[in-house]
Amino acid sequence: MARQSMREEIVEAALEQFHTHGFNAAGVKDITDAAGVPKGSFYNHFDSKEALAVVALQRYGAGRRLQDLADDGVEPLARLRAHFEFLRDEIVHREFTAGCLIGNFGTEIIDHSEVLRAAVRQSLQHWAALVAAALTEAQQARTVRAGLDPDTTARFILNAWEGTLIGARADRSADDFDAFFDIVFGTLLT
Amino acid sequence: MARQSMREEIVEAALEQFHTHGFNAAGVKDITDAAGVPKGSFYNHFDSKEALAVVALQRYGAGRRLQDLADDGVEPLARLRAHFEFLRDEIVHREFTAGCLIGNFGTEIIDHSEVLRAAVRQSLQHWAALVAAALTEAQQARTVRAGLDPDTTARFILNAWEGTLIGARADRSADDFDAFFDIVFGTLLT
Repeated sequence: MARQSMREEIVEAALEQFHTHGFNAAGVKDITDAAGVPKGSFYNHFDSKEALAVVALQRYGAGRRLQDLADDGVEPLARLRAHFEFLRDEIVHREFTAGCLIGNFGTEIIDHSEVLRAAVRQSLQHWAALVAAALTEAQQARTVRAGLDPDTTARFILNAWEGTLIGARADRSADDFDAFFDIVFGTLLT
Repeated sequence: MARQSMREEIVEAALEQFHTHGFNAAGVKDITDAAGVPKGSFYNHFDSKEALAVVALQRYGAGRRLQDLADDGVEPLARLRAHFEFLRDEIVHREFTAGCLIGNFGTEIIDHSEVLRAAVRQSLQHWAALVAAALTEAQQARTVRAGLDPDTTARFILNAWEGTLIGARADRSADDFDAFFDIVFGTLLT
């Protein structure tokens, strides 16, 4: 049990260190220090920082409430908007820093790690499939325009979201979030 | 003259090193080695890697043919499309790696460097102003729908572009570029 708890502390610390500092700037020692465990214990649990980053990315995804996108108790277009509002509010709470771990790894490290590229790709595909399903439902409910291909549109919206985080971080303001909601929900979908 | 040429070699090498490896992974020694100059010469020309990164970012922006966005010899909507096609072709040529230096710095380093955050912000603002001007002209020519606010739309399109590069790098395919052109030029603007 002690081993399992130590592993868990390393994963939680790694998620925060990677999210705050990036893959390269967060060293194994930074992570074990933040976890309050001996550096030597790291390799009892993970083969490499890269292997830990894959687990941290999965943990990050699991905390993004993606299941809400499939909650049929809420009207599909409202669900989509609430999802991005939740993600926006997280960033506002962090004073427009840190962004999205998927996008951060997606710019910093995936050209240099096939394992992390596969993990980022899978995260984006999983997320896009849920957005596409909500878009399809919204089209059936006639709240999203009929002509849009759900898969293409989902992919585009997620990309627009990831880029919006870059603009918001550069500007340290909500202006780019406002542009995202205006254009996506005010023009593109309706 | 020798000093000036050495500075130039450092800037060119830094641009390529930062673009390929990122800010943190490209060390001063990597840059001076790539430039073929002694490491000791670095600080004759730049106060810090951060100061060099600002110059590299300006150099990157200057190579993106932004002036073509204001070329009134070409119809404004065609100009916009050609601009993003040029940027896409650069990435395809690099086999879907490297992305955009503005977006890369915008995720990796701007939370930790006010100087680079200001530089990224200025790059995005300059670029967005040129896109907004082309959109305004296109609205006057009735090739872009009238209801869109040019500044908001320009900001959104650039963010969507930056995120599209993340998707394309993760997927190593042109699918995300296709989604960008389909949605922006096929639905959003027209």
